[in-house]
Amino acid sequence: MPEFSFSLMKTDGEARRGVIKTPRGNIQTPAFMPVGTGGTVKALYMDQVREAGADIILGNTYHLMLRPGAERVERLGGLHDLIKWDGPILTDSGGFQVMSLAKLRKMTEKGVIFQSHIDGSTHELTPERSMEIQRMLGSTIQMQLDECVAYPHTHNEAERAMQLSLRWAERSLKAFGDQPGHGCFGIVQGGIDEKLREESANTLKAMNFDGLAIGGLAVGEGQELMLATISATIPHMPVSKPRYLMGVGTPADLLLSVERGIDMFDCVMPTRSGRHGQAFTSKGKLNLRNAKHAEDLRPLDESSSHPALNKYSRAYIHHLIRSGEILGMMLLSWANIAYYQELMAGMRKSIEEGEFAKFKQKTIQDWQKLV
Amino acid sequence: MPEFSFSLMKTDGEARRGVIKTPRGNIQTPAFMPVGTGGTVKALYMDQVREAGADIILGNTYHLMLRPGAERVERLGGLHDLIKWDGPILTDSGGFQVMSLAKLRKMTEKGVIFQSHIDGSTHELTPERSMEIQRMLGSTIQMQLDECVAYPHTHNEAERAMQLSLRWAERSLKAFGDQPGHGCFGIVQGGIDEKLREESANTLKAMNFDGLAIGGLAVGEGQELMLATISATIPHMPVSKPRYLMGVGTPADLLLSVERGIDMFDCVMPTRSGRHGQAFTSKGKLNLRNAKHAEDLRPLDESSSHPALNKYSRAYIHHLIRSGEILGMMLLSWANIAYYQELMAGMRKSIEEGEFAKFKQKTIQDWQKLV
Repeated sequence: MPEFSFSLMKTDGEARRGVIKTPRGNIQTPAFMPVGTGGTVKALYMDQVREAGADIILGNTYHLMLRPGAERVERLGGLHDLIKWDGPILTDSGGFQVMSLAKLRKMTEKGVIFQSHIDGSTHELTPERSMEIQRMLGSTIQMQLDECVAYPHTHNEAERAMQLSLRWAERSLKAFGDQPGHGCFGIVQGGIDEKLREESANTLKAMNFDGLAIGGLAVGEGQELMLATISATIPHMPVSKPRYLMGVGTPADLLLSVERGIDMFDCVMPTRSGRHGQAFTSKGKLNLRNAKHAEDLRPLDESSSHPALNKYSRAYIHHLIRSGEILGMMLLSWANIAYYQELMAGMRKSIEEGEFAKFKQKTIQDWQKLV
Repeated sequence: MPEFSFSLMKTDGEARRGVIKTPRGNIQTPAFMPVGTGGTVKALYMDQVREAGADIILGNTYHLMLRPGAERVERLGGLHDLIKWDGPILTDSGGFQVMSLAKLRKMTEKGVIFQSHIDGSTHELTPERSMEIQRMLGSTIQMQLDECVAYPHTHNEAERAMQLSLRWAERSLKAFGDQPGHGCFGIVQGGIDEKLREESANTLKAMNFDGLAIGGLAVGEGQELMLATISATIPHMPVSKPRYLMGVGTPADLLLSVERGIDMFDCVMPTRSGRHGQAFTSKGKLNLRNAKHAEDLRPLDESSSHPALNKYSRAYIHHLIRSGEILGMMLLSWANIAYYQELMAGMRKSIEEGEFAKFKQKTIQDWQKLV
């Protein structure tokens, strides 16, 4: 089986153009990973996800371990077969959602015990169990278990969680073991404290991870602090390994983070916003619930060649969203995933051509153009 | 513009194989029309509806007049352009849903005044207004306004509603006027009273409708009484015009009604049942919520060549339905529309070959085969 590898093909300022090779296919970076929470990128067919240009999707360990359950997914032949996605899948460790969704958590050095938000059943997630689950799912890129502190936080809280995450990083890497063709990523923590981020990144750099993520951002600190923390962290991350900014973000977040050297992203924003009536386009954001769209025959984005963006009128989508029709959620989720992928493709091309700064400027200008 | 026409190509017993020609395309009969309630066949892309084999879809005048509104649809270029369906569309008159959904109805000889179930606004539906709305929508086949009595009913109730429907039939036909390439259908009423049905059909036969429907069935009378009423009505309907059984039904209803000489059907069952976890297949019905499917790797129907029926495992669909995922509703709605169209195609072929009785027997036998 071919190895898991990352090649950096081109840089333009701090922005990087690379490729992650996996036996499941190549991931062109910078890459945006649509989130397939519980085994589905909500309201999309996998063919649409692929055709929109996604090379990799994300699965949530927390959701999948509760339903259908990791052992069941393994008996069913793994997540890829079950959900009919044959490309690479990255799974998170489950830790973030234990913090945000589960009830009655108890955190120890060993791990975290929690109650399912679905049926109240008790589960334990340790670094070892998280890696076991991710292996049973058949995940291509597996994430260490970490602890992410909420914002705002004290220095002591951020330091304690960062140190615990480092100890869990070692245990996760050991539990990951030897899985040819699969990768294991560590996660830099430290809140918005630059010194803690530096210490976390430097310690993880010395371990044998296949990539490093920046976790614990986009949790309420705002874009400015997020970008400052990224800028302060990046210099301490290895150049030769992919850098993944977890749970981010808006189109502007992606653009400004790629500018700072980030290679990978995931976020529910395009699909979640789509289900709630919002469209992201090359001319900016549209709220399709708004009455002003009721008789607007223009498509979401005339400049796009993608059917989700150029086929259906705003008037029709407005009608569907106002009527609570599933097709409205389908069309906007699809359109947003398509736009996010168009944006990533544009960034990749501009880095190849050494024109990232120009692309960034033009893209931000175009976002103001919406009538 | 080519005229609206019906040709009967072949009969096999009472079963009929025909084609309705319209400027929007031909409708091969017997035909099942997926219901596109408020401008969308729920949870399906129109491409999927077309590729499943549907020649025509149905739109609901009641829903569309309330939202987005008939005048608005007309300003937006008509229903076809709005919803991106270029084939024929049949619209009902709105009367049935006024009875089943609207509040505070007041029925007079002139028409019916009601309050919208969405916002309580007051609307009037008369035979003339219903035809005006259907014309504004751009409907290919337009239905007269009728009154449908609930089951059980007295003879007097059924007779009064049937006579009113006949007077409304004349007014509807006059209001339909001259619309080349479009058709107007009358509706036989009379409850489960065979004499009333006969009188209704004979009176409508003398009018210049392009087709006749049987309304007021599948409202609680049960399959046996429904089929008896169809059998008693059909001999009084014109041979040279399409016969449409409104709001029906299960796959067995379709088979047994085609056997009695029905050419057209519409029903929300495939999409509504799909959204609630039920699949119709050539081997019978499946309830995908049922725990027995949790680790069943078989597709819904191995004998089908359609991706909605043969690609995804029952285990996956079970997981999606149990998790309330939109994709579960999408997949089952799609699978059910595909199966309904496969069933209609099978009936059409068997009539052409003079083998309808054999096809019917085998189909019913196969429905018992589900493991």
